This record gives sequence, structure tokens and C-alpha cells, in this order.
Amino acid sequence: MTVEITADVHERLAGYRDRFEPLFARYFDTLAQQQLPHSSFVPEALELVRDMSLRGGKRLRVALLYEAARLVTPDPVEGLEEAALSIELLQTHGLIHDDIVDDSPVRRGARSVYYAYRDRYPDREQTALGLAVLAGDLAAFWSVQVLLCAPVSRELCQAMAAVQATAGADTVVGQVLDLERDFGPLPDREVLDAVSEYKSARYSVLAPLQLGLLAAGADPAGHHEELARYARLVGVSGQLRDDYLDLFADTATVGKPTGSDLRAGRRSYAVCALLGATAGRDRELVEAALADPDCPPEMVEQVQGIARHHGVDRQLRADSRRIAQDAAAVAAGWRGRWRADAVEFFEHLPLWGAQRIS
Amino acid sequence: MTVEITADVHERLAGYRDRFEPLFARYFDTLAQQQLPHSSFVPEALELVRDMSLRGGKRLRVALLYEAARLVTPDPVEGLEEAALSIELLQTHGLIHDDIVDDSPVRRGARSVYYAYRDRYPDREQTALGLAVLAGDLAAFWSVQVLLCAPVSRELCQAMAAVQATAGADTVVGQVLDLERDFGPLPDREVLDAVSEYKSARYSVLAPLQLGLLAAGADPAGHHEELARYARLVGVSGQLRDDYLDLFADTATVGKPTGSDLRAGRRSYAVCALLGATAGRDRELVEAALADPDCPPEMVEQVQGIARHHGVDRQLRADSRRIAQDAAAVAAGWRGRWRADAVEFFEHLPLWGAQRIS
Repeated sequence: MTVEITADVHERLAGYRDRFEPLFARYFDTLAQQQLPHSSFVPEALELVRDMSLRGGKRLRVALLYEAARLVTPDPVEGLEEAALSIELLQTHGLIHDDIVDDSPVRRGARSVYYAYRDRYPDREQTALGLAVLAGDLAAFWSVQVLLCAPVSRELCQAMAAVQATAGADTVVGQVLDLERDFGPLPDREVLDAVSEYKSARYSVLAPLQLGLLAAGADPAGHHEELARYARLVGVSGQLRDDYLDLFADTATVGKPTGSDLRAGRRSYAVCALLGATAGRDRELVEAALADPDCPPEMVEQVQGIARHHGVDRQLRADSRRIAQDAAAVAAGWRGRWRADAVEFFEHLPLWGAQRIS
Repeated sequence: MTVEITADVHERLAGYRDRFEPLFARYFDTLAQQQLPHSSFVPEALELVRDMSLRGGKRLRVALLYEAARLVTPDPVEGLEEAALSIELLQTHGLIHDDIVDDSPVRRGARSVYYAYRDRYPDREQTALGLAVLAGDLAAFWSVQVLLCAPVSRELCQAMAAVQATAGADTVVGQVLDLERDFGPLPDREVLDAVSEYKSARYSVLAPLQLGLLAAGADPAGHHEELARYARLVGVSGQLRDDYLDLFADTATVGKPTGSDLRAGRRSYAVCALLGATAGRDRELVEAALADPDCPPEMVEQVQGIARHHGVDRQLRADSRRIAQDAAAVAAGWRGRWRADAVEFFEHLPLWGAQRIS
């Protein structure tokens, strides 16, 4: 089955992004005007958070939010702008701290906030670390604050902020699980799925859905189980795809060297499937490449060959596709209750992702 | 003027603390019951955050909160328990991240969360750092979440959460200013006051006042200027006192070695006053001691002698007392509008602090 993103949907996605970018820039302009006298460090933190935030890519989370409101109504809905800002500020928070956790110099094609600070204070590593932690904290509080000050009813402010505070805490739990995954015995599938769910699905899929429905006047709590199930399936399917691409795609497709999870010793779906499928000399070769940052491209190619021999590539692709179809089936169940063209968006979304690897 | 803490107030303070401690422990018990299967890292994070949170000392912020509600009514008020939890969780968040920023092994008389992680993962410093950042993040999101789920009206949830999200962001700004203070040319008094205000007064004094008033049905926005002024004066007076004690008190009084700010190169009120008051050989000696972690006690004693010779000790004491009196005068202006016995608490609070050094 091939699901094409229609020109109409493409246009809608681009429209959300094009509306969001200047809004996000204006948000940071307003913050900058509120700053204190006597300080250069506070404006600097703001500038670094802003720069990283505005290098945002597709803004698919924002699209999910607007489409979630369109499940209920085609009319403009108050509170979505603040919800969009909150979603992206929470994302910014997560990325800044994630880059400290992973000691990553690069984010969104440029310097991570942590390494931008290290560049600016080359002799004061501890100060750079501290400022990066604090920059991430600012984004976290802003992500809740922007909702609590939204020009909508105080009940809606409360309900939307509760969604984001929960999504924030869940994402942090996901980051802790992600670190744990790479310790101890080989994690089973349930652990990998929990990482996908907590570290990404909850704030990237579930929260935008909940926020859009809330702003449009619906009650997401009444449909919590199916929304959470949809988000989890989209998250797991997407993570399976990303992990597949990390091991099997060429560098041009993923924008980073193939095998980065393998080299970093990250127990991705692909790495776990590989370890589970191999034994003897094959397993030894995989183990030798694993967690070796200097593992040469030829060795990654050998590992790819072993993986293909054991059918790991086919298994990952099939898994991702099957779970995407399960997600689409959940969304299809929303027909009748919610507006057809938005339901279609949520039905097709996981399949667009899955077809990148079919 | 001597202001004694009356037996009645002592009892009230102890009462708030004794009620709060089991509440805080129960809060963490409930969190622990909600945890995921398959994880030992998440319960470990919870345990470390809990341990540090429950070593809480006097809980003066909680007392401020309850007394703020008593400004309006002597009757029990809904929402104060959640506000107290939020206040202490925000404090926990700030302390965990502050100990990363300052690379501090000790907090509240035991291992900081950062160093507790380093002890547990001695060969994985990066993992320990990451887990400590994430543990602090959890406390930040919980501090807002607990208010958003309080069993009070959604309007009150919104208003209280907005106070704490703002207090959280302000405190982070204060931590950034605190780092900036120790860079570049000697900071002037306005910078030092801004650090005191942002880094401590806003979340420790202003937010508890606002939360208590809100829960009791008053509108703190209508009195914002004077509440903020009171908080700022209490914060500055208290910081002057702490900085005085750090340089001049004996170790037994402050529970840490005398001169720790000097040794760490922190530009406290005392250190700045000392640098501003000295020249020639005296200044050279101060400069030699400054930012030398191994500066021996005898040298700290010499610096103390220089400081006393230039009247720095008297000046700091007088400053702290005068500003405490200004704060008390602001609170005195609340008589008539608010209940007398609670007004008296806020009037006396800054003076109790100041008299420790008079």
C-alpha cells in the first residue's frame, strides 16, 4: 500500500510551519524586551535558546496540534498559538538538556547550546555546563508559563498547562529510561517500547492531540485510552523506522553517518535485533563494532551484511509498517465522531513515515 | 531593638513543619506507586530526589505560605498543601541544578544529588551528570503539576501554577546572574541586589505570599508592588546577613568553614564591600586570598582583621538591619487591610533574621 501525501496536506503542513515561525520569533522578541538591565549573560542565554529553537525543521508537532483542533472544527480556535509555543519550548528544553546528557556538540545542523557555551567560555568548562543547564531550565518554565498566560479561559489555561507539565515529566522519565537501556543485560522489547513512548510519543504526539482537542472544546480525557494508544503506536513505529535508517540508510538519507547508534553503543531497536539474531563469529563482530566510536565504515558495512543475512532489516521494516497500520486503524475508528478530513490526516500520518522505508 | 520570636510563633512555625513533613513523604510515596515496571533508574531518581527533599530544615517558605493565607482568614484554606508541595519541589529543583552548576558535593548536610549519582556510577561520570540534570528536571515539572492537579477550582489551579512557573523562571534568571556576577569588573550594588531578588526573594518570599493570598481568596495582583518590595527587601537583608556570617562568623554558627565565599571567589556582598574598601597592601592580601580554594584559615583571619579595620563588618550589619527595618515597615502598612496577628509575623520575620548578627 502506498499512501501519498496529497498536495493539499503538503500545503497545510507548510502553512502551519509558515505561520508558526514568525510567531515563535515574536515570542522571543517579547522576552528580550522584558530583560533586566546590567546583564549580558541573561540576554546571551535567551539568544542561544532562541537560535536553537528557531532552527526547527518541519514542526510536525505544531501540525498535529492544529489538525487535532480540526478534528472538532474547521474554524479558527483560540489558544492554539500558545499551545504551539508551549510544544516547541518543551522540545527546546528537552533538546538542550539531552545534549548535556549525551555530550553532543551538534543539534539541528549547528552547535548545541551546551557546546555553544563551551565555545564562548573555553577556559571555564564548569560555567559553560552550568549556563547550559540553566538555559534548558528557562525553556521548561516558559513552556508552562506561556499556556498559563494564554488569552483564553482560565479553565482552558489550567487544562492545557496540566497536559504539558505531565508531558514534560513523562519525557524526562523517558530520558532516564533511555540511559538505563544501555546498562545491564540486553533490554527486552517492552523496555524499548517504553523508551519510545515516554521519550517521544507522549510529548510529540499525545500532548499535541490533547492540546488541540482541548482548545477546540473537546474533552480528551474521555478518549484517553485510544489517544494514548495511537500516540504509542506512532512513536514506536517511528522509532523503529529511525533506528532502521540509522543502521541501513546511506548517510545522505539520514544526514548523519550510518551506524551512529552502533558506534555510540546505543541499544536501539536495530542494535537489539542484531544482538538477538546473531551468535558465534557474527555476534563477535557485532560486539566488536558496538560502542566503538572509531569503528570504521567498512566494519559498519560488514555489520550491515550480517544484519541483512539474518533478516534484521526486513524484520524492522515489517515491524514498523505493521505498527503504523495499527496506529492508522486506531485513527480510522475516529470517523463518525470527529471530522473526516482531519481523521484522514491522523490515519495517514504513521503510514507516510513507514513508507520511507518500504 | 530586640524582637523575640514569641513562644506562640515558635509553636506555629514548628506546627507548619510538622504537618508538612509527612505530607511531603506521602507525596513521594504516591509518585513511587505510579512508577513503571522494568526500570530501576526511575525509582532511583525518585529516591534521590526524595531523600534530598526530605532533608528540609526549617521549611520557612511553607510557614510564609500558611501565614500569608492567615493574612486573610484564620480558617483552614484549601489548596495550601499543594502550594506547600510546589514550593518545596521548586526548591528541590533549584538545589539539584545549583549543585551541578557549582559542582557541589554537599547539600543539606549530605551528598548532593549530583554527587550521589557520581558515587553510584564512579566509572560513568557523563551518565551521573545526565541523571542529575534529569532528576532536577523532574522536580521542576512536578512543582507545577502538583498545583495543576490540586483539588480546588481550576481558576485557582491556574493562578497558583502561574505564580510558580514565573517564580521558577525568575530563579533561573537569578542563577544566571549569580554566575555573571563573578565575571568581569567588580559588580555594583544594583547587580548584587538583583541577584538576591531573582535568585532567592522571588521564589522564597514573593511566591509563598502570592500563593497563600490566592488560596485564601485574595488577589495578590492588586498589591503586587508592595508584595514585591517586601520580598526584595527581605531577600537583600537576608543575603547581606548570610554573606556577613560567611566571612565573620565562626564555623560552628554557619555550619561551614568561615570564608567559603572568599575561597570560592564568589563576589558576595561581603567580598565586594571588602574589595571596595581596601587599597594598597590590604587589597593585595584580599586579592591573594580571593578564589584560592586552599587559602589557609590564618589568611582568612588576616582578611577578617582587614575587613574589621575598614569597618566592613559594621557596614554589612547596619545595612542588613536597615533593610530589614524597611521590610518590616512595608509589612506594617498591611495593618487594617489584613489580619493583625499574621501582619505581625511578616513584620517581625526580617527582624528575627537581622538580629542574628546584631
